[in-house]
Amino acid sequence: MSQETMSRRDALKLGMIGAGAAMLTASQAMAAAPMEKDVKFDEEYDVIVIGTGFAGLAAAAKAAERGYKVLILEKMGRVGGNSVINGGGMAVPMNKYQKKHGIEDSGEKFIADCLKAGLGINHVEMLETIVKRSNDALEFALKCGAKFQDVKPAWFGGHSVARTLVTENMSGSGIIQPMVAFVEKLPGCKIMTRTKMDDFVMSNDGTSVLGVTARINYRFDKKLISDDMENTSGEKKVFRAKKGVILASGGFSMDKVYRKMQDPRIMEDMDATNHDGATAGALLKAFQIGALPIHIDWIQQGPWASPDERGFGVAPLLTQQGLFNLGIAVDVRNGKRFMNEMADRKTRADAEYVILREAPKMYPVNFGTYNTFGEQIYPQVEKGLQSGVMKKFDTLDALAANYKIPADALKATVKKYNEDALAGKEDEFKKQTLKNLKAAPIDMKGPFYAIRLMPKPHHTMGGLKIDTKARVISGNTGKPILGLFAAGEVTGGTHGASRLGTVAVTDCLTFGLIAGETI
Amino acid sequence: MSQETMSRRDALKLGMIGAGAAMLTASQAMAAAPMEKDVKFDEEYDVIVIGTGFAGLAAAAKAAERGYKVLILEKMGRVGGNSVINGGGMAVPMNKYQKKHGIEDSGEKFIADCLKAGLGINHVEMLETIVKRSNDALEFALKCGAKFQDVKPAWFGGHSVARTLVTENMSGSGIIQPMVAFVEKLPGCKIMTRTKMDDFVMSNDGTSVLGVTARINYRFDKKLISDDMENTSGEKKVFRAKKGVILASGGFSMDKVYRKMQDPRIMEDMDATNHDGATAGALLKAFQIGALPIHIDWIQQGPWASPDERGFGVAPLLTQQGLFNLGIAVDVRNGKRFMNEMADRKTRADAEYVILREAPKMYPVNFGTYNTFGEQIYPQVEKGLQSGVMKKFDTLDALAANYKIPADALKATVKKYNEDALAGKEDEFKKQTLKNLKAAPIDMKGPFYAIRLMPKPHHTMGGLKIDTKARVISGNTGKPILGLFAAGEVTGGTHGASRLGTVAVTDCLTFGLIAGETI
Repeated sequence: MSQETMSRRDALKLGMIGAGAAMLTASQAMAAAPMEKDVKFDEEYDVIVIGTGFAGLAAAAKAAERGYKVLILEKMGRVGGNSVINGGGMAVPMNKYQKKHGIEDSGEKFIADCLKAGLGINHVEMLETIVKRSNDALEFALKCGAKFQDVKPAWFGGHSVARTLVTENMSGSGIIQPMVAFVEKLPGCKIMTRTKMDDFVMSNDGTSVLGVTARINYRFDKKLISDDMENTSGEKKVFRAKKGVILASGGFSMDKVYRKMQDPRIMEDMDATNHDGATAGALLKAFQIGALPIHIDWIQQGPWASPDERGFGVAPLLTQQGLFNLGIAVDVRNGKRFMNEMADRKTRADAEYVILREAPKMYPVNFGTYNTFGEQIYPQVEKGLQSGVMKKFDTLDALAANYKIPADALKATVKKYNEDALAGKEDEFKKQTLKNLKAAPIDMKGPFYAIRLMPKPHHTMGGLKIDTKARVISGNTGKPILGLFAAGEVTGGTHGASRLGTVAVTDCLTFGLIAGETI
Repeated sequence: MSQETMSRRDALKLGMIGAGAAMLTASQAMAAAPMEKDVKFDEEYDVIVIGTGFAGLAAAAKAAERGYKVLILEKMGRVGGNSVINGGGMAVPMNKYQKKHGIEDSGEKFIADCLKAGLGINHVEMLETIVKRSNDALEFALKCGAKFQDVKPAWFGGHSVARTLVTENMSGSGIIQPMVAFVEKLPGCKIMTRTKMDDFVMSNDGTSVLGVTARINYRFDKKLISDDMENTSGEKKVFRAKKGVILASGGFSMDKVYRKMQDPRIMEDMDATNHDGATAGALLKAFQIGALPIHIDWIQQGPWASPDERGFGVAPLLTQQGLFNLGIAVDVRNGKRFMNEMADRKTRADAEYVILREAPKMYPVNFGTYNTFGEQIYPQVEKGLQSGVMKKFDTLDALAANYKIPADALKATVKKYNEDALAGKEDEFKKQTLKNLKAAPIDMKGPFYAIRLMPKPHHTMGGLKIDTKARVISGNTGKPILGLFAAGEVTGGTHGASRLGTVAVTDCLTFGLIAGETI
């Protein structure tokens, strides 16, 4: 039984962590955070920020602008976390570009959109805060030098109006790079890369965060099952934070151990759309000093990704704005369709996992013909073929042979799909895009374009509980933990069960700004 | 806007916790668990068990049977937690009663059933353990004196075969009471009620659990927003556990603060099917010594419950085996139906919450006529009328007037519903029970029976991560925390997103037994 095989293999891998963990220093392995009396501070700052994504940099920039001496710790060799590889879209309800283009929006609409996507479990006070403060966050990003396209806002899926601004370079780097330049220009503001926070330093009465222990010259090792548990590189330093610590360490979509505990379908060797360093280490340390875990198992996964490229890649464009639309996805074992290729993300990721659970690595194949690609992604088609994530076949037989799909069954699937569409009949999965098509969606003359599919973790909705001032709430008192603030993907509650596209940038910049104001 | 109103009210209530929390002793408020060097042990045992439900008593009984000196702590005045008010059904795959009645079952079937209900995120190795060990758990319960009906096993929803045994008295007390008698007869085994565990006592190197701090003469106060944060009653004691602590403190369906953080639709003043003491305090303390939060936001809620009685009550029987079947549920604001009354639990609870979010306390009303009640619950009909949770009306006008439903709209709803069913047409929500009915489901002669509906939290799927030996896994090492074991509803992973009915008893008894064997 494959499930048994999987669990044995996993047990083996957890055993491997054990071996690495055995090398940990006592301070890494022990649960209790060190207290003031246990440490000697090497350096002293007003504010310490953990992470250099949107939230961390916004918090640092605001705190530094207020005159504080700020230390920003980044465990990786480069700054920007997931933010710098993000698409650069920021949803801002009632923004100035909407007004310029006559788009009516409201806080109620924004909150209703988020609650609908979030299955009603979003923390409404966080959404209300975004409504009140996201235009300030936008202005602050602009002040730091971020450049947004001065055009009509974009209309993203799940939003009831067009409210998304996109950076000029269509990447989060259009915000991150100016912000890095901004903070580096401010006196007393320092970014240290390859410096990993290990733990919080607590006051002797255990109630306040006074600083952090960290390791400089740290080298993240993506080959480890758990870098957080196994990596012993670097030299220990203790940093005091007189005003407090702002945790902006991001999500855990690349944490092979913890993401799998939340969703065992995510195998250790599965890629995500995230950068390698997106692990849960700092979040778990916050739980140990009383931060409350919220919505921790909601991991948004992209059913439009491919195992044949790293990270986000080009497949999501080619499937979402192409092959999913009129093309089909089949189970390679029997050549049959197994989902509505246009269903919501979760439904499709779940359907792909049913196959991958039964037959590990037998990735389903999505294919179609040229007519299915949207005009705007024609340049991406070449890119996909060149990188090899998409393949082109002259015949269905050649396609079937390449992916070891039973050819006759595959051809029967295509035949029925085309016939149903031609006859104006609903296909077996009730795909809306075929309604009234009255044409063969798959052009039998070929050529046929194909991409293998694998769900990739994309965003972890869960995290720790903060209040609307970005203060971390304690499970012991129901009140803020003194000296601890957090913002961005490391927090939970704002997005509920599922985040709407382009609200992550908004969330991170808004609560990053607020953390920098509050501290 | 009602959401704003709600969040302001909630902020106020959280402020109220603050007032109580200010009275906490320093040791309650601080995050770090005390170490050996910080305490003086008052008493010494081999094993300390927290909780007296199925899991705690099974663990204690097994450990005591092995010759250990066992202390069992129960914070409430009575033993048994939720278990003693449970329905007494235990699903055991491949049990001896199935064999006697020729019912074929298998581990694969059981696991597939659980994975389907659990949306595929169950930890399969835990289900495999239940397959291997639940018959042992059943035998152990029988040995302790539990009495099950010697009949053909019952077939519960979501199970692919009949595999549920039910206690002779149709209550979990049929297991709890004999187990209490069993442990009390064993030498060196002691139950202390009104004794609340406050924290773990850790070894000086922070890696092992050596015991607990607790308060004797503790009086749980259900009037507090958070008993865990605010209650200061009792006198402190420190207990050493030479072999370890077994945490079996249950779920948190009655934790007004923490359940609402996971699902903000669950207002503080909403009842649950649980006993008052089902709070998150001990679970949160385990997170603080490194236990990993798993699936923490999946709270199973019963859409079949009523605000007009406390706890589980009689409404669930009257709706599930009665008024939902042929009757209808309407939104009192407009007299219209708003859900398929036979949909799955989550779909129906979500539909009820949409109304309650827009209009707090405007509980929907489920009604029908006598023909809808199953014969087996005729005695309950009288009980429901006597307690007042169900009301009887001679006319639809009287019913509408009582609940302030627009009478004309209500009558139009009933008329259409009956006409569709008579004509063999599908109703607007595609209710399966009306298919081929060819009769009026609601008997217009009356009388009409009505119950107000409110979802009630029933089981918290999430908790901390244990391995198949009931050892609590540390987020710092990926290995067991020395001296810490857990079983039952305080753990997460086994049930995934949604627990199948009657698998809770199995889970608790199986992993309770294993904890008692492993320690």
